[in-house]
Amino acid sequence: MNGELNVREAVYALLRELGLTTVFGNPGSTELPMFRHFPDDFRYVLGLQESVVVAMADGFAQGRNDAALVNLHSAIGVGHALGSIFTAFKNQTPLVITAGQQARSILPFEPFLYSEQAAQLPKPYVKWSVEPARAADVPGAIARAYYVAMQPPRGPTFVSVPVDDWDRPAVPAFARVVSRTVAGDPELLDRAAASLASARRPIMVVGAGVARDDAWDETIALAEQHQAAVWVSPMSARNSFPERHPLFAGFLPANRKAIVDCLRGADLILVLGAPVFTYHVEGEGPHIPAGAALFQLTDDPAAASWAPVGTSIVASLKCGVAALLGRSPAAGRAAPVIPPRPPRLAPPPVLTDRYLLQQIAALRPMDSIIVEEAPSSRGPMHDHLPIVERETFYTCASGGLGHGLPAAVGVALARPGRKVIGLLGDGSAMYAIQGLWSAAELDLPVAFIIVANNSYRALEEFGRHFDIRTLPGIKLPHLDFCALAQGQGVKARRVDRWEELDAALAEAFSADTPTLLEVRVG
Amino acid sequence: MNGELNVREAVYALLRELGLTTVFGNPGSTELPMFRHFPDDFRYVLGLQESVVVAMADGFAQGRNDAALVNLHSAIGVGHALGSIFTAFKNQTPLVITAGQQARSILPFEPFLYSEQAAQLPKPYVKWSVEPARAADVPGAIARAYYVAMQPPRGPTFVSVPVDDWDRPAVPAFARVVSRTVAGDPELLDRAAASLASARRPIMVVGAGVARDDAWDETIALAEQHQAAVWVSPMSARNSFPERHPLFAGFLPANRKAIVDCLRGADLILVLGAPVFTYHVEGEGPHIPAGAALFQLTDDPAAASWAPVGTSIVASLKCGVAALLGRSPAAGRAAPVIPPRPPRLAPPPVLTDRYLLQQIAALRPMDSIIVEEAPSSRGPMHDHLPIVERETFYTCASGGLGHGLPAAVGVALARPGRKVIGLLGDGSAMYAIQGLWSAAELDLPVAFIIVANNSYRALEEFGRHFDIRTLPGIKLPHLDFCALAQGQGVKARRVDRWEELDAALAEAFSADTPTLLEVRVG
Repeated sequence: MNGELNVREAVYALLRELGLTTVFGNPGSTELPMFRHFPDDFRYVLGLQESVVVAMADGFAQGRNDAALVNLHSAIGVGHALGSIFTAFKNQTPLVITAGQQARSILPFEPFLYSEQAAQLPKPYVKWSVEPARAADVPGAIARAYYVAMQPPRGPTFVSVPVDDWDRPAVPAFARVVSRTVAGDPELLDRAAASLASARRPIMVVGAGVARDDAWDETIALAEQHQAAVWVSPMSARNSFPERHPLFAGFLPANRKAIVDCLRGADLILVLGAPVFTYHVEGEGPHIPAGAALFQLTDDPAAASWAPVGTSIVASLKCGVAALLGRSPAAGRAAPVIPPRPPRLAPPPVLTDRYLLQQIAALRPMDSIIVEEAPSSRGPMHDHLPIVERETFYTCASGGLGHGLPAAVGVALARPGRKVIGLLGDGSAMYAIQGLWSAAELDLPVAFIIVANNSYRALEEFGRHFDIRTLPGIKLPHLDFCALAQGQGVKARRVDRWEELDAALAEAFSADTPTLLEVRVG
Repeated sequence: MNGELNVREAVYALLRELGLTTVFGNPGSTELPMFRHFPDDFRYVLGLQESVVVAMADGFAQGRNDAALVNLHSAIGVGHALGSIFTAFKNQTPLVITAGQQARSILPFEPFLYSEQAAQLPKPYVKWSVEPARAADVPGAIARAYYVAMQPPRGPTFVSVPVDDWDRPAVPAFARVVSRTVAGDPELLDRAAASLASARRPIMVVGAGVARDDAWDETIALAEQHQAAVWVSPMSARNSFPERHPLFAGFLPANRKAIVDCLRGADLILVLGAPVFTYHVEGEGPHIPAGAALFQLTDDPAAASWAPVGTSIVASLKCGVAALLGRSPAAGRAAPVIPPRPPRLAPPPVLTDRYLLQQIAALRPMDSIIVEEAPSSRGPMHDHLPIVERETFYTCASGGLGHGLPAAVGVALARPGRKVIGLLGDGSAMYAIQGLWSAAELDLPVAFIIVANNSYRALEEFGRHFDIRTLPGIKLPHLDFCALAQGQGVKARRVDRWEELDAALAEAFSADTPTLLEVRVG
């Protein structure tokens, strides 16, 4: 044991080495000694509820492409955060989450704020979790939590720290190199490359893994090399291919039969950085068209294991796609037939989400970033708001609500000088409305755009899938988002006619402070 | 198997028999078939985030003194709710929580909205959880969940229901009698009664268990029979003794040494419906004064087991206290010395929480109910806002934030015609600000009173315990609660001078709709 540093000093030294100098949190009594002599080169980002805290950190980590540090308050903070931790797990976002625990000496007495089975609480949605058996081992646990979070597939990790540990002697931990890339099995990559080279009509399906692993250029080159139509995998949470590229074919639905219809004609399906496949509803029949072979490249060993068809290769995407690119010469194929783009919309008598999305596409800054959580507008967005630049689109992979608004704040914090557009349903925005306060306090140039349709409209639409006409709990009347924004220090404006829309969007997009635009749609 | 009813029909028939006809929830696609043909005699109470949903249900269950039914959306809904589930577990509130799961046929493919290890997710903060292996057994699982939730100690239970189960044939379940009362070991009760009868100076410590089990009258009678001073157990979440009774001594702090100081002079300590004891900070030395014996009556076998001193008797409180009352004749003791009451306050130049609380006490309707989550005002509340009627005070036993505002909504829903006063810190209110919308939609006469001090002040105060002067993340500037209320359809008013306070309170207390009063205090 090295008695020179206490746990707090050793942890801050380690965090500084790892570049984790932003702490997202909401403090409680069991965390206070962590913040004794809080160093000047660290910053604390306060969220007003832990689901907001973790979603901000998630956006920040994705925007920076590195882990983010979170501090939560004992069992209650982890409990409030667990929805957002689930989403971070599904997003494969690296988060190092620490939480306070009561003092070791009083744990036998189930004290106030005790976290019973603290390391168990966030499971199964953390990759690793621990409450070290000795105070001295807290720095080492945080180091391990960071390396595990950054290994593929990335994700959240968790360390519970008793409140009395911070002032005790530490075993220091120092930053070291731990690999983050896994190259695929060379023999299987050869086999995939040979299939690709000899295929008559290859099709590519790209998922969030391509974006997460920065395989954007390699993926475009591979598609062009093989004249492969490129589909986006169902419910993909990141943009992985330019959506106006001549080879861009569209977005696969999360429905077995519909996927087979989209992929029909292919003799080879190459899935990059995505599951095979993400389904939202039951389905029957084959998973891929008859006569097609399938290869999957994924950095997720679990997704490789459960895929029901094809050959799965566990590999980091950038590395794996580069390997395929080098091993599969162009085959001189004709360009594939690509579905036609939807036509431009004229201004509608009653504002629609479609028209709003088209005007956002027309007016937004070239390098702006979209963070979306507007489930019923996802289809219209695919049609009218193409994402064409790398790392400019984020949504939530878990299918939950409450991620988009605070994630937009986190992305903006990670990307200074860039306009971030939070495209949010009214139901989504209400899940995490407290995030507006953080945007205002941090003075970030986020344009929150609320697609206000007074309902959980995606559910109304989904009800038809089950042939249910009347559903309780899906109407959201009487919300005034301008008041909710102004009450938290965010300037706001309401638009309900197309004639006012362009000016309002231009104002929001040129602002260098947070703004909210409530757009009433029919 | 009885093929006459499907799972949905069997479940609604059971719920109707059990009196669980109010569903608290926020629906998602995996729950929709539960709401096909939603019966007219059921109502759905929508909360805009699951932490709000569960806290409303918690207030409703406590206000009704029966279990409440919750429906959550798959892993994301349970995740968002887990902080409030933790609080319900600590509150010992009976909740039957159902959550959607994806369809059984696609679980092998880790589908969108899949809840991996669904029955594990809410642990350890549910008493029992299950995802039935067959659709047919869902009604039986819900019946068991109800009986378990209602057995002492009460608490939440959990049933995960795959979306395709609702339309399948059911094994129906019918309401039956399952006991909810546990009488204590007669021999140990005799021993406790004998000690009480022969004690020179007995002291009683009462906790939330007294209120939960309706042992109010018996507890008063027992204190009077023995001229015992009555202290409230540390951090008690319910009112268990009239706070202006001549025997009422005050509130024990959550601190070992301070508790020993309060109880000094006793030769017998009788703890009713509380742990021995709830500590918030480390402490050393004995748990009770030298020379004192201790008996504990608790309905929680775990709390009986971990208590470090004394004789613990597991028993329902009403039954157990009645037994003591019948077995321990009055001993003709002199009245104990009770600490003096704090003096009345004159109007201060800058409004304080103390003065606000005194005026609430003076002006509130006799039968109004306080739901409190204003941690830094807890001490002033004890001094200036005595709770004197049974079942008129609720706070959160977990020490988390985000319970009080929605719990006030739930209590108001359970007690039609009663004025409910939600006494909330600004930090607390922001944790669950979406609950205002539900109050407005349900048109409940809740007076939300925000003690607005622009900070997490309890933490500032707690920092001094650790000798920390500067803390990050504890300032809450720039919040306008009137705007936040109006944005959700709740009438609001701000007060920052004592001269305006009484009129504003009178207006809020006489309103038959929800109102919010933002009181700026120094």
